[in-house]
Amino acid sequence: MRVSTRSKVDPFIVMDVMEAARRAEAEGRHIIHMEVGQPGTGAPKAATRTLAQAMADGPLGYTVALGLPALRQRIAKMYGDWHGIDLDPNRVVVTSGSSGGFILAFTALFDSGDRVGIGAPGYPSYRQILHALGLTPVDLQTSSENRLQPTAGDFANSDLQGLLFASPANPSGTMLDTSAMTKLIEGAQAQGASVISDEIYHGIEYEAKAVTALSITDECYVINSFSKYFSMTGWRIGWMVVPEDHVRVVERIAQNMFICAPHASQVAALAAMDAKDELEANMDVYRANRAFMLDGLPKAGFAKFAPPDGAFYVYADVSEFTEDSRSFAADILSEAGVAVTPGLDFDPVRGHKTLRFSYARSSQDITEGLARLQAFMVRRGFA
Amino acid sequence: MRVSTRSKVDPFIVMDVMEAARRAEAEGRHIIHMEVGQPGTGAPKAATRTLAQAMADGPLGYTVALGLPALRQRIAKMYGDWHGIDLDPNRVVVTSGSSGGFILAFTALFDSGDRVGIGAPGYPSYRQILHALGLTPVDLQTSSENRLQPTAGDFANSDLQGLLFASPANPSGTMLDTSAMTKLIEGAQAQGASVISDEIYHGIEYEAKAVTALSITDECYVINSFSKYFSMTGWRIGWMVVPEDHVRVVERIAQNMFICAPHASQVAALAAMDAKDELEANMDVYRANRAFMLDGLPKAGFAKFAPPDGAFYVYADVSEFTEDSRSFAADILSEAGVAVTPGLDFDPVRGHKTLRFSYARSSQDITEGLARLQAFMVRRGFA
Repeated sequence: MRVSTRSKVDPFIVMDVMEAARRAEAEGRHIIHMEVGQPGTGAPKAATRTLAQAMADGPLGYTVALGLPALRQRIAKMYGDWHGIDLDPNRVVVTSGSSGGFILAFTALFDSGDRVGIGAPGYPSYRQILHALGLTPVDLQTSSENRLQPTAGDFANSDLQGLLFASPANPSGTMLDTSAMTKLIEGAQAQGASVISDEIYHGIEYEAKAVTALSITDECYVINSFSKYFSMTGWRIGWMVVPEDHVRVVERIAQNMFICAPHASQVAALAAMDAKDELEANMDVYRANRAFMLDGLPKAGFAKFAPPDGAFYVYADVSEFTEDSRSFAADILSEAGVAVTPGLDFDPVRGHKTLRFSYARSSQDITEGLARLQAFMVRRGFA
Repeated sequence: MRVSTRSKVDPFIVMDVMEAARRAEAEGRHIIHMEVGQPGTGAPKAATRTLAQAMADGPLGYTVALGLPALRQRIAKMYGDWHGIDLDPNRVVVTSGSSGGFILAFTALFDSGDRVGIGAPGYPSYRQILHALGLTPVDLQTSSENRLQPTAGDFANSDLQGLLFASPANPSGTMLDTSAMTKLIEGAQAQGASVISDEIYHGIEYEAKAVTALSITDECYVINSFSKYFSMTGWRIGWMVVPEDHVRVVERIAQNMFICAPHASQVAALAAMDAKDELEANMDVYRANRAFMLDGLPKAGFAKFAPPDGAFYVYADVSEFTEDSRSFAADILSEAGVAVTPGLDFDPVRGHKTLRFSYARSSQDITEGLARLQAFMVRRGFA
């Protein structure tokens, strides 16, 4: 049997790192995981407790395609609490993680061959999902002056049908303020490109609150997830906000492509939204870890990065030390016992000179990881 | 914002029936649900008990994209138990329901515009998912002589790149025996079409065991689910078996499009597979219900159907009574208080003369539904 052309997506290089880390651990080594993009914490206790009760109460069959009404209402309410926005719950679509949101959004908005701009560096699956759906990802090379976020000038002559941006971004953690995001949206809309705002790191912010695209325009798709702030990665549950006149379109696609998001995860997610104390305790850890990173990475010689506004990553320029981030990451793993991600997954063009450090795990792991990184760099004569 | 052409999928007509039934219930009427395609039972108790324990034990983060190794092994073992097939667990891909399996299979196998044959009548989402992915569904009009299953002759000159069939089928419940399935597969392979076998109703069989395509060829994709026999609809968990040399391709697509199937559902599904007593008790209900249907439907005048070999549906030709199955179903709902599905979802061309009756619910509901149907048909002078 032949395989399709669209199925030829690039492998994740981070998967090789994770596999190498797993092998090292199987050999008895202790590895610090600064490569993974998921919280070390699980779903809030209120979430699992509520689900345990729901399972005892009765069957969790299909929900309607757009999701449990109570969950859609609770999500809409959050936009009031967080952003002062009065959002119609009917515009909220519960999805199977942000992954499900991307598939729905791309399908609703784009046809075969359509060109969708994405910032480089950026989340690698944007490119791969677009490709797998027969669409054309267009990398926009961002600059460090713009803190690795795209600007309207980056796609002025790119004939885009869509623009997808993320704030806070992965891998850089940088955000767009209202002015920058407004210019970006206006630039996209001026060329008739549909706007998708990836807001999955909202809630994990440090100096300032992240801006939602919904505060600028209703003519956009907003994608979010319970995986990061709400610490529910494995549950595959997220949401999307779409323009009012797109709800029926998205509903029909969702009915056919997903039937519904996992019912159990919807029940758990609803309860998670009120687990403020536990979620803010997680935030205390991220805040402490960020401070450790901002102090410890420069001491280890990794000084070229934009301080993250949100998320739990630092994306560092390592061009002083290597032209091959992949082998550099392999050396760090084998010599220092710290798993980090080479930038190639995020930016195929320039990622050979960058590394992503994640600080999503415990503070103990982060401080130990930083100490090991510093010792490694000192041995190399780089710090 | 424009919507794409590929997003223009047909609405489910059954959704209108379900909404009308919901309204009737809100007005205080008692409705018998013979329209829904999901078991009334929930996940086996062993499944929810095991999950409750797992939630207490620790976080349920991402699993690897192909699924928990123990679940893949247990699924492979099932092919030994059920079919005497020695299946390599590495060929098993855990998916987000059969819906996730279809998206993965279609993406791995087909490019924009590729033509994929599907039997009519058939599961409506085949057509819609193909369309949403920029592919071309090709309806194969089946005949009652072939018990509404496609044959190689139905697509001899159709220039297909793919063929998808289901046994037991929805909406008919009919199965392909080894000889018929072999001819179908040979016909497809002769024209270079990739074969996908939808086996989601396996386990719900009456007179004979369903044949798996894997007993005929390894050169096919097999899609299955925990939603039907294992009674876990809302959990969005299923699996796929693919040729050995396709595993890496599917893995990469799954990493990007899904990350993983819901971890909680994977844990529950693994436990469900050993809940034989509870699952067989469900089967006792389906067996009893089928006997009620085979007796009661003809008494109510619905005599033109192939007795189902599996699944929990009867698909009846009602052309003696109506040329408009949609309004006929509406009459049955409003006058008899029984929700049934007009055939148009399954067969846009001939479905105006057919109805699907589901017997997935309790025997009490089914016998009551049959009595109401008979009374309705007597009033109409049809029985």
